Amino acid sequence: MDAFTIAEPPETPLRHVLTSSQFDRRFLNYLCQLTNTIRRFDKSREGLAYLGSLLSHKRAMLYFTQPSTRTFLSFHSACHILGITASEIRDSATSSERKGESVEDSLRTFSSYVDLIIMRSPIPGLCDRTAQLLDATPRPVPIINAGSGPDEHPTQALLDIYTLTRSLRMRGGIDGKTICMVGDLRRGRTVRSLARLLANYEGVRIIFSSPPAFRIAQDLRTDLAAAGVAFEETDAFLPAIAEADAVYMTRIQDEYDVGDESGALDYSKYHLRAEHLPSLRDDCVIMHPLPRRDELDPEIDHDPRAKYWRQERNGMWVRAAVLTMLFGVDDRIQLPEL
Amino acid sequence: MDAFTIAEPPETPLRHVLTSSQFDRRFLNYLCQLTNTIRRFDKSREGLAYLGSLLSHKRAMLYFTQPSTRTFLSFHSACHILGITASEIRDSATSSERKGESVEDSLRTFSSYVDLIIMRSPIPGLCDRTAQLLDATPRPVPIINAGSGPDEHPTQALLDIYTLTRSLRMRGGIDGKTICMVGDLRRGRTVRSLARLLANYEGVRIIFSSPPAFRIAQDLRTDLAAAGVAFEETDAFLPAIAEADAVYMTRIQDEYDVGDESGALDYSKYHLRAEHLPSLRDDCVIMHPLPRRDELDPEIDHDPRAKYWRQERNGMWVRAAVLTMLFGVDDRIQLPEL
Amino acid sequence: MDAFTIAEPPETPLRHVLTSSQFDRRFLNYLCQLTNTIRRFDKSREGLAYLGSLLSHKRAMLYFTQPSTRTFLSFHSACHILGITASEIRDSATSSERKGESVEDSLRTFSSYVDLIIMRSPIPGLCDRTAQLLDATPRPVPIINAGSGPDEHPTQALLDIYTLTRSLRMRGGIDGKTICMVGDLRRGRTVRSLARLLANYEGVRIIFSSPPAFRIAQDLRTDLAAAGVAFEETDAFLPAIAEADAVYMTRIQDEYDVGDESGALDYSKYHLRAEHLPSLRDDCVIMHPLPRRDELDPEIDHDPRAKYWRQERNGMWVRAAVLTMLFGVDDRIQLPEL
Repeated sequence: MDAFTIAEPPETPLRHVLTSSQFDRRFLNYLCQLTNTIRRFDKSREGLAYLGSLLSHKRAMLYFTQPSTRTFLSFHSACHILGITASEIRDSATSSERKGESVEDSLRTFSSYVDLIIMRSPIPGLCDRTAQLLDATPRPVPIINAGSGPDEHPTQALLDIYTLTRSLRMRGGIDGKTICMVGDLRRGRTVRSLARLLANYEGVRIIFSSPPAFRIAQDLRTDLAAAGVAFEETDAFLPAIAEADAVYMTRIQDEYDVGDESGALDYSKYHLRAEHLPSLRDDCVIMHPLPRRDELDPEIDHDPRAKYWRQERNGMWVRAAVLTMLFGVDDRIQLPEL
Repeated sequence: MDAFTIAEPPETPLRHVLTSSQFDRRFLNYLCQLTNTIRRFDKSREGLAYLGSLLSHKRAMLYFTQPSTRTFLSFHSACHILGITASEIRDSATSSERKGESVEDSLRTFSSYVDLIIMRSPIPGLCDRTAQLLDATPRPVPIINAGSGPDEHPTQALLDIYTLTRSLRMRGGIDGKTICMVGDLRRGRTVRSLARLLANYEGVRIIFSSPPAFRIAQDLRTDLAAAGVAFEETDAFLPAIAEADAVYMTRIQDEYDVGDESGALDYSKYHLRAEHLPSLRDDCVIMHPLPRRDELDPEIDHDPRAKYWRQERNGMWVRAAVLTMLFGVDDRIQLPEL
Repeated sequence: MDAFTIAEPPETPLRHVLTSSQFDRRFLNYLCQLTNTIRRFDKSREGLAYLGSLLSHKRAMLYFTQPSTRTFLSFHSACHILGITASEIRDSATSSERKGESVEDSLRTFSSYVDLIIMRSPIPGLCDRTAQLLDATPRPVPIINAGSGPDEHPTQALLDIYTLTRSLRMRGGIDGKTICMVGDLRRGRTVRSLARLLANYEGVRIIFSSPPAFRIAQDLRTDLAAAGVAFEETDAFLPAIAEADAVYMTRIQDEYDVGDESGALDYSKYHLRAEHLPSLRDDCVIMHPLPRRDELDPEIDHDPRAKYWRQERNGMWVRAAVLTMLFGVDDRIQLPEL
């Protein structure tokens, strides 16, 4: 897609957002274009008023029994932008569950009152089960997986793709670029989802830079090979980031530690510090899904190549774009970026 | 009331919603008609836009210090439908109470900021006391009892009446029908409130089917007799439900157990299972206030006679109708169901 | 300022609200006038619709990790009045902080999604630090200190000034009046802030009435003397309140006790009871920042001189006025009180 091509909408309407593997290149191109438009609308009072009228008759439930302030706020704001009113469940135990109600009944109850359920739950597979359950009722409201469980965080992957597309737009987009992912690659959900989505682009090369203990999992290795994606694994840091068009930093996911594998490790070799900046390409895109710890020095925030704060803000617009597609009002946002 | 009669509004405006005994037949007829209209408006974008403009200048406080996800969400959505913005207190101890403030001062504070207080509190009689307190101030905002205490849940009773009225509308409404209530009849608030409201209808017969330990309380027995309502008590299950025009299932209220009276009991005889469906009348209305446990098999959800999910959703519209009456804008909803 | 003067807006736009010392007389006069107008708009459906359209494209974050129901609700309602949608953080530990994120990164994240942060945090100096931090980013959203820490509560001081100005408007305003402050003057934030703001008025005399252990702190004494404010300190109660144009009652701030200094004290001498009412001036203004305990008898609520419930409600309008100034839409509220 170059800047003068107008992306076509997907052939089938978007019903649920459950996994990043449901997205193809056509979807991604269209979503990026839509997000560009929403982002521009969001900058003017008139644009905001228009966006805010699009879905003001809709209600959403944010069911976040696995806590996440950042993702919660991003979706909450995306709802606000489109005029959607939001109710929220953030307690891990709702009162009805305490009264012995099944989680399926609880979710069907929410569907009685709202038009959309955005969920993040520690229960494995609950998003998929809920979508199936509601599809069999007279009120099949859409479900968005907002990062449930250890493997999937599809809207994070979408905002990463959008940020790459936008940051690389003067250089032909993602096709043909070298992306270096750094850190805890074995357990980082965002790494797994993003790597899989990159398979939709031509000639992408991925460098995975990590301590040996945190190399990517075998299933991802197999999938990327099957998809024909060129990738390398290394425990080097500086040589890996030096040749990248984009560096994607991640933190240690020690919440998934079984023993003390994170504490036993010297992770400092995989920290990006101000002293490394001269080694990066002048047009390198520095990303991070946030929150960060020591692996990304706040000094770098002031470097123009640092895109992670925009990446975070992009998430709000990408999610708003997804919401317009779920409710079929994306065709009312007709201003492509020329 | 038949389908061609237009119900008249109550003679006195609605000031507070405190107890189901404040409603008479005229009120119930009018409310059902109003709810029908709101429900129909809620199905179109234009209708929703109109409803959402009716009370967009009003603010409500949802003071839910006794937790209830379902009722909370139902009221929250009802507010949304009418454009009312809602603030919420869901902590059992607000910070001001921790600073030594009386609950009366806390509630008067809420009344400073909002136009309506919807409350569910474990403190006995707090709704009534608050209504009286505020009525003596220059800012007497309306109070809705959203299920406070062990005895009253007036808006639940209203949504039950609406669901019966609507489900029986092709058969002449509630008058002359046989309603069978099953389960923990001694402690179920909804049973008590609904039975009392049924006294407003002509020729209704109630069958109470329960284990001997959970028969209705003496005060309800006395009240129904005084009101001339025909009722029977039985520990039979299948014969009772077989002749009913509507079966109202309830769960064991074991949160009110003093010892282990619920655990000691075999309640399975009072479970409605798929195998019982052939014994019910072809036009029987199956209801349940939800949440359910084992007393109502999810298999039954697919039977067209199961109305409990609609009953739940009806609650949102009934509550929206009540809100329009409290703010005196019900006369701006002029489309009766013909 | 008399009733026929139209107050001029401040010369420099309002950027943040961090401390009461940032306000001068011109600001206070303008704010009071603006608040009068908003308060009047709030009384009609048309006025409310106009106010609600002013900032409907804006989003606010209420970051209240130090709990305060009253102030929270007041700001929440002020946002509602102007159409601002609000997200809230009320947990003392957000999930990202649990993941090791710095509080600065958390706050920068909030600024990604919203246009304003209203904060109350137990971390000393966090408001100032956040304002500085964000001012150095491309997205310097305004910060409001909603009562963080032990010393500052600038919007409370503003609503106190507004209530005094309004209650004394037929008597020439605050200039030349005697204000008696009673109670725990050493630790009461509101006393400290209000006393400092009173230095902006001509010929004000302050009487501080307190137990010896709770006299005002030396820094306030020094500041008032430097500003040329006439003040007296006394442990008398009745003589002090008898000559006041306004009595400002406060509760013991025993949440700041180190040992049991509050419990050891007989505070009852500084309680205002119905029996004292005849000793007050006929036009005395009785104020209290609320919540109250025993120091202010609820019997007094019915006396027309009691202004504390209005004072509380005034806070909502004053905060709405502040919000219009922060977003530069105050000039669209053009109806001065003549």
